[in-house]
Amino acid sequence: MRCGGITFMNGTRNMQGQLKFAQLYRDISVIHKGEYMYKDFDYDESQQLYYKSHEDMCEFAVRSSINVAKKLRQLQAQRNPGGTEYWPTLFDEPDLWGLHLAGNPFNVMYMVVVDALKTQSTPEQYKEFGKRVERFEVTATYAQTELGHSSHLRGLETRADYDRDTDEFVLNTPSITAYKWWPGGLGQCSNHAIVMAQLYIDREHKGLHMFYVQVREEGTHEPRPGVHIGELGKKMGYLGVNNGFLGLKNVRIPRTRMLMRHAQVNRDGSYVKSPVDALTYFAMLSTRCIVTRNSAVALATAATIATRFSAVRRQSPIDDSLPEPQIMDHVTQQLKVFPEIATCLAYRLAYDYLRELFSATSRDIDHGNYNSLPELHSLSCALKVMSTSDCAAGIERLRLACGGLGYLASSNLSNIYVNTVAACTYEGENTVLLLQVGRFLMKSWYAALSGAPVAPTASYLAEVQQSPDFGLWTGSWSNLVRAMQFAAANKTRLAFKSLSRRIENGESERMASSHTGIGLTQAAQLHARAFVLHRFCAEVTGPKSRARSPALNRVLQQLLELYLVNVTLSSLGDVLRVVHLTDEDLNKLQARLEDALAKLRPDAVAIVDGFDFGDKQLNSTLGFHDGNMLERVFNAALKAPMNRKSVPKSFHEHLGPFMRSNI
Amino acid sequence: MRCGGITFMNGTRNMQGQLKFAQLYRDISVIHKGEYMYKDFDYDESQQLYYKSHEDMCEFAVRSSINVAKKLRQLQAQRNPGGTEYWPTLFDEPDLWGLHLAGNPFNVMYMVVVDALKTQSTPEQYKEFGKRVERFEVTATYAQTELGHSSHLRGLETRADYDRDTDEFVLNTPSITAYKWWPGGLGQCSNHAIVMAQLYIDREHKGLHMFYVQVREEGTHEPRPGVHIGELGKKMGYLGVNNGFLGLKNVRIPRTRMLMRHAQVNRDGSYVKSPVDALTYFAMLSTRCIVTRNSAVALATAATIATRFSAVRRQSPIDDSLPEPQIMDHVTQQLKVFPEIATCLAYRLAYDYLRELFSATSRDIDHGNYNSLPELHSLSCALKVMSTSDCAAGIERLRLACGGLGYLASSNLSNIYVNTVAACTYEGENTVLLLQVGRFLMKSWYAALSGAPVAPTASYLAEVQQSPDFGLWTGSWSNLVRAMQFAAANKTRLAFKSLSRRIENGESERMASSHTGIGLTQAAQLHARAFVLHRFCAEVTGPKSRARSPALNRVLQQLLELYLVNVTLSSLGDVLRVVHLTDEDLNKLQARLEDALAKLRPDAVAIVDGFDFGDKQLNSTLGFHDGNMLERVFNAALKAPMNRKSVPKSFHEHLGPFMRSNI
Repeated sequence: MRCGGITFMNGTRNMQGQLKFAQLYRDISVIHKGEYMYKDFDYDESQQLYYKSHEDMCEFAVRSSINVAKKLRQLQAQRNPGGTEYWPTLFDEPDLWGLHLAGNPFNVMYMVVVDALKTQSTPEQYKEFGKRVERFEVTATYAQTELGHSSHLRGLETRADYDRDTDEFVLNTPSITAYKWWPGGLGQCSNHAIVMAQLYIDREHKGLHMFYVQVREEGTHEPRPGVHIGELGKKMGYLGVNNGFLGLKNVRIPRTRMLMRHAQVNRDGSYVKSPVDALTYFAMLSTRCIVTRNSAVALATAATIATRFSAVRRQSPIDDSLPEPQIMDHVTQQLKVFPEIATCLAYRLAYDYLRELFSATSRDIDHGNYNSLPELHSLSCALKVMSTSDCAAGIERLRLACGGLGYLASSNLSNIYVNTVAACTYEGENTVLLLQVGRFLMKSWYAALSGAPVAPTASYLAEVQQSPDFGLWTGSWSNLVRAMQFAAANKTRLAFKSLSRRIENGESERMASSHTGIGLTQAAQLHARAFVLHRFCAEVTGPKSRARSPALNRVLQQLLELYLVNVTLSSLGDVLRVVHLTDEDLNKLQARLEDALAKLRPDAVAIVDGFDFGDKQLNSTLGFHDGNMLERVFNAALKAPMNRKSVPKSFHEHLGPFMRSNI
Repeated sequence: MRCGGITFMNGTRNMQGQLKFAQLYRDISVIHKGEYMYKDFDYDESQQLYYKSHEDMCEFAVRSSINVAKKLRQLQAQRNPGGTEYWPTLFDEPDLWGLHLAGNPFNVMYMVVVDALKTQSTPEQYKEFGKRVERFEVTATYAQTELGHSSHLRGLETRADYDRDTDEFVLNTPSITAYKWWPGGLGQCSNHAIVMAQLYIDREHKGLHMFYVQVREEGTHEPRPGVHIGELGKKMGYLGVNNGFLGLKNVRIPRTRMLMRHAQVNRDGSYVKSPVDALTYFAMLSTRCIVTRNSAVALATAATIATRFSAVRRQSPIDDSLPEPQIMDHVTQQLKVFPEIATCLAYRLAYDYLRELFSATSRDIDHGNYNSLPELHSLSCALKVMSTSDCAAGIERLRLACGGLGYLASSNLSNIYVNTVAACTYEGENTVLLLQVGRFLMKSWYAALSGAPVAPTASYLAEVQQSPDFGLWTGSWSNLVRAMQFAAANKTRLAFKSLSRRIENGESERMASSHTGIGLTQAAQLHARAFVLHRFCAEVTGPKSRARSPALNRVLQQLLELYLVNVTLSSLGDVLRVVHLTDEDLNKLQARLEDALAKLRPDAVAIVDGFDFGDKQLNSTLGFHDGNMLERVFNAALKAPMNRKSVPKSFHEHLGPFMRSNI
């Protein structure tokens, strides 16, 4: 990377692509960004997005997503007709985020709906209507959350009553709190929806089921009778995905439109229960895993932008005799930027493990074995929570690290932030998920106490119970990981104690659990931290290191060192409760932090170059690989639509008359 | 407050107005919101703001700000002609933020420019052109930051060369990095600007000075010859304030347009230096104080919205036998919301002290005494940094605590966030300011070591030096304050040690200071924390408590308890380095946290009602005092402009053809 004539690579090898996020997270490396998908990408037009009205942003999102779909479908037809490796697999790939700048209104369709149809409908159903969604002949979204009900699924109000006379379900949202609320693409783009509703047969409640409901006419796209559908309004981010609302009034669908793979309603109204309730939620679990990956990638894009910015921006001479340095030479700037580079890698590597566990569990389930489901559930929750909250906070820190220029829409950092932070709420609100992890920890702690087996990701709890003394502090990597495990185990122990005491005092288990909420969430957070530290350490020092070049290993080790030390220092309050550290030990840790930052300084630009994001994918005036930052910021400003006129209308109508009124 | 038929006041007295932010921060309580200023406020139109194009948002901002100005000027003329208590004093009052929803393009004019003209120009100059700005006959902004230069003022490139032949200054921005960048209202609204530029006389550099420059024609508003001016583009927030850029090419102004109160250029080109450089920066200091107040108010508005939301929203039954509770009954929700109520009060009270110190210092300066300037500078920096970062983070936590609905623009929470977080960067970037506070601490530590006097806000450093043993941990409020002071002193000691070691090893003082950046900023943060804790404690327990009702004192004590315990637990890593706490002590602290939350639960709604913000000021579908939350969210969605048509254009042009193309 060369910026304004200055070489940033301080004498080190070229890392181009070595830490490539794309290669790390997907196996098909078929289309290189810029060469096919971004070929006719209009950068100037994409920069105009933020100036548009909401309506025009939504139009932009539909148009650009359809363009992506067209290209991918074409590619698939050309190279491997009937396959899926290009279309729809790559539709929402992070590589293509630059093309979905206002969001992809159809990503729920391919991330959730097709999967749900495949796993929840019978083969006949899939053939009849599932296939049509997959082929994009119709559009569908997934309608679960309601205006008055989100995390508490059993509280959903939308109901489907079986009408034996006509062999139909009659769907209703009986109040505004029952309106479906949030589904992506529902507002304007979907003519079908999978509606999650309470099934009633002869007024008898049969629990939640999925119904495939047509909401708009296929030809005209007009809402169907009884369907009240629309856009739910401007949001902080996801500017163009037309999240929508849906009210249903006596909407009738054939009985065969209930997804009946696991539970069935027969013609005579008899009901066959699903053998395992958990199966209904397995699709959500898969989405939750993708959220972890996407958060890590989003942080990596922001880290790339901020690192390049820090290499180009010059500010505040360290010594008056010297010119203003690259701000990356300020240790305070290093502390803002470099840990985020490490964090995105840490979550990417944790995701690897999660993905493997997901695959293994899927295979087990196919063989009727549900044993590892609780652990997969807990781990997917824990990583979803920590990756979204850490990555969102990291992106915002990186945006702030770019000073005022990071506040400009043209930096794209605010857009990356507002899209990432949304994931703290969707696919399971973070606190709700942490409480579930907390309950998993309580069960694990209890199991360990009673000598019962404990899931691998929680096995350290049993170890700490057996030898509760941390022993010698060495400050080695494994020692730091162990310290975090001890901190997590300690919080788990304390939460377990509070919980037990409350139950002994007569509270119900649910009530006691609710009152122990703070302890449970804190334990869950530390548990997730310990897991991420452990995986990062295992990936870097484990057998895989033998397959990597020494140069790459060195960089990964430096990032691991930074991550471990920085996380430990940030969690010191918890660590010091379980490990005795002398003042000298702590000073050493602080020195290691500064040392790790200094060691990364010469390689930082090369490392993010190694992530190999394309300029068009980053779409940031601050983050082009050529480093011509200020010129781009300046030119982007000149192109603001308001600059087309030298005098705005508001001067003639408001400002001018007011100034004259006083004279 | 009654919400949907449920009374929230669990048997306690009405707090209406008792913690009124308005009364707390200003003495004139002359216009009650809603009664005059908001009389013809169009709520529906204001809710449409977020749907507009950027150009229309800017138009909206100009129009609404001029409307506010008109009303206030009218009020002033009616009630006290010639006075200033209504106009312009109240122009940017937080009470009126609901009327400036897209920002006030003229607030720089009254917050900075008029003040700068008053303090930096001679009486003759003020009469000639300053008065015209004050009267709004012309519009002016303050142009200091440049595209390539922000924090490092001495690096500014814009220059003013004195031309003795014509008795003029010739102003130039010699490159795009020299372009003035950011001034509020510069893009479209200002016909004048105070331009900060390097003065040259006979090519000799005389340092930075302020120049009053006309940039647009008064009648036509067209840019003047040599002036390149425009809007710098969409930003994360401050949607309509048209922050602008300014390039100057041989723009000539009369010599008498340099602001000459303190330094002068005479007709013959002779130069008289300002007696005290600091005077030039005193205006910035005043603005920085206001930022602290505004951050606290912004957090208070968000806390009001989130508290009311938490009282209305029902979610997740604690026990299956019970209905879904108000989410405020979940301790995890309490932990998200209640500490922010305490935080906004803490900063509001810290601001009181700052404002008094500012007034005292101003009086001293008028008498030629500059002694307390360093302390005022340091305290204003410290509080600006911590209030902006804590309040912004708090607002975002509160927004997230409102779940998905907090993501809707109609909640107004994202708008409050993006406007507040901007203050982390403007008026002195937070890290740059922390480093200045850090240097103040180094000087103070050194002074204390040498027995020299130490400023009152840093006097605890001397005390810790004299008795470095913390002594007994009692957990009392003063003990918690003291623990934070010891933590701050410890970090200061460590930073001083690092700094000294580096200097001994041959680094220059500047270089050593730069390399100690992490330690300095950490010490500065703890120093500010200790100050805020100390002030909160002093205000609640000190003599002022005698003038308050017992009920109000009780609430303030509960908030203080929560704040002290929560901040201590959050800073435990630093506290445990200086105070030995047993496991039992720590468990007690955790129990106190939960206890403090539980105690605040019955009063929380009453407390924020006591802040007394008007519904129109909050402008949030989630935060109306009547608690009709979901209906408002629903109605706001229906009013999204896209819902005017049943089928969007994008269906006919893009989506429909694509779906058919596959069949």
